[in-house]
Amino acid sequence: MYDHKYLLEFTTEVFMQIGCSREDAGAVAAVLIAAELRDHSSHGMIRVREYYDLWKSGRVNVTPDVKVVHQTPSTAVVDGDRCFGMVAGIRSMKLAIEKATVTGTGWVAARNSNHFGIAGYYAMKALEHDMVGICVTNANPLVVPTWSVSRYLGTNPLAVAVPALHEPPFVADFATTPIARGKLAVSEKKGEKVPFGFVQDADGNPSDDPGILRRGGGMVTLGGDRVHGSHKGYCMSAVVDIFSAVFSGANFGPFVPPSVAYLPVPEHQVGEGTGHFFGAMRIDAFRPADEFKASMDEWIRTFRGAKPRKGETRVLIPGDPEREAEERNSKAGIKLVPAVVIDLKAIAAELGLNFNEEE
Amino acid sequence: MYDHKYLLEFTTEVFMQIGCSREDAGAVAAVLIAAELRDHSSHGMIRVREYYDLWKSGRVNVTPDVKVVHQTPSTAVVDGDRCFGMVAGIRSMKLAIEKATVTGTGWVAARNSNHFGIAGYYAMKALEHDMVGICVTNANPLVVPTWSVSRYLGTNPLAVAVPALHEPPFVADFATTPIARGKLAVSEKKGEKVPFGFVQDADGNPSDDPGILRRGGGMVTLGGDRVHGSHKGYCMSAVVDIFSAVFSGANFGPFVPPSVAYLPVPEHQVGEGTGHFFGAMRIDAFRPADEFKASMDEWIRTFRGAKPRKGETRVLIPGDPEREAEERNSKAGIKLVPAVVIDLKAIAAELGLNFNEEE
Repeated sequence: MYDHKYLLEFTTEVFMQIGCSREDAGAVAAVLIAAELRDHSSHGMIRVREYYDLWKSGRVNVTPDVKVVHQTPSTAVVDGDRCFGMVAGIRSMKLAIEKATVTGTGWVAARNSNHFGIAGYYAMKALEHDMVGICVTNANPLVVPTWSVSRYLGTNPLAVAVPALHEPPFVADFATTPIARGKLAVSEKKGEKVPFGFVQDADGNPSDDPGILRRGGGMVTLGGDRVHGSHKGYCMSAVVDIFSAVFSGANFGPFVPPSVAYLPVPEHQVGEGTGHFFGAMRIDAFRPADEFKASMDEWIRTFRGAKPRKGETRVLIPGDPEREAEERNSKAGIKLVPAVVIDLKAIAAELGLNFNEEE
Repeated sequence: MYDHKYLLEFTTEVFMQIGCSREDAGAVAAVLIAAELRDHSSHGMIRVREYYDLWKSGRVNVTPDVKVVHQTPSTAVVDGDRCFGMVAGIRSMKLAIEKATVTGTGWVAARNSNHFGIAGYYAMKALEHDMVGICVTNANPLVVPTWSVSRYLGTNPLAVAVPALHEPPFVADFATTPIARGKLAVSEKKGEKVPFGFVQDADGNPSDDPGILRRGGGMVTLGGDRVHGSHKGYCMSAVVDIFSAVFSGANFGPFVPPSVAYLPVPEHQVGEGTGHFFGAMRIDAFRPADEFKASMDEWIRTFRGAKPRKGETRVLIPGDPEREAEERNSKAGIKLVPAVVIDLKAIAAELGLNFNEEE
């Protein structure tokens, strides 16, 4: 197990070593370690190798001039100057919060960015300001619109964080597909099939093959098929794509650059880099803050009191599993799989750093 | 077939006859007829009887004092004074647009309202102002959170409208459940089963019985079951509920009053009436309007150009089916089922009006 503080320190050093400022390196590290703590290891330390290779390939600028290129009292567009996504993400969310402080709400679209980790990290930044936080991002295309075989959408996640009074906050953070892509990779490595309703083959037929993406298949949107409402998942994913890219001037849909160096950037580009969208809403812009938060407590307690169905012991509130993981992992430490440890050691060696043995 | 202008005129007269101002009656009628034109007849003329009965039962105020009770430059809360939902809806969306005109974006939460028809109607109001429109509402509880048998959520729809330049606008308007409740009623009347993945029985077992809601069953959230991501549909539905009720001070979840008079209002109330939430975002608060709209054209053309899977002829853009229906129905007229015609004639007779025979 690795102590999360050690991983934070090591990761910060890695990104400083390749040229990031202490602040920017700290931002990248903070979001990756937050993912590990919250049991989203697919967005955690495994990405250090990917980000490092992306930098090596020249696709990330480690000394970006992140700029506000347009604004009104409640809105702004940020250009990330090809930064690591966390740098644009933290800067944009901070700006949204500042605007909300003055005008009630703040909305910031970011372009010319890269993969930014877990969307929930940014949405949760609003909580300490007694604000509701919202964050979406588009992602490289692997997902088909309903009726289609064209991989034109990313897993396009949406995060919403709402503060409560005595209860822990409500934090929804989810992809607009039935499952995360990482789960397909895990099943494939184990040689297992996946349930129908996750992927389709190159002709659009339902498939249970987790490796089908490498043979022209695609992931489906939430809902699974047309009968079960995949067109609604397509709507959500499309809204996330439009908010991330059309508001900001980033690439949308099939043109979003991959977050890994071994996949080429699409030749035709319709905007700049990857796009994100951030929102902050002061709760006292609607009701007295304590009244709003007491009402959220009542909402949370009501839903936690829902009757579990046979075989279940409790009904979860969005954010419960991640918060419980965070409490557990920050005490017990973070388990890294051997392949990730090997990657981190290799990167450390290249940069003249040291990555500790597991304790 | 009925001409939509005739239905608009008749419906306006009905609501004026029970005491609404011409403006308010026109608002109710406009939204109901818009639903008919857009082939959402479950939210159309069939509701005249429900609204009429709700008024008769004393649950709707036909001379409401709709008021802004709280505001900041970009936000407001509207109290509907137990109005028909359309009255609060149109007023709130107008206010959101006014605020967006000044500060870039406007966000209005409404409470003490009732059923307001199709969410898309309000979102689309933003389009003519070169704004993106957003609208959500909670609804009376029929839907179970994942892991539960408690009907704590409504079908809680979400609508987003985005303007384009030469292409028709993008309009997503969808419930956060696999299907609309009306489809269950239709299958039940026909004596047909429904596919698994729409409803569960009182113990939480998957069911194909469209009448199961009357025996303690519940609708499931988008995704269908936990394996296929119903917890993501639960997240979305919960976000819609919180935005509609906790922002405004309306009832949430299991406490939302039914939109039909024959179901009682829950004894315990945690807020006032039904809640909605409206947003308007000036597109030129992010990019020059023509640039934004040209980018939307490119988005729409790209997705319309996606390759259909075997057996499909085209890939739809959100809003295509409803827009095509609107063009068709405004020329050919609106078909009402016999039961609705009988209801309308009965109401007309009670109010000293006349409802024409079908032409």
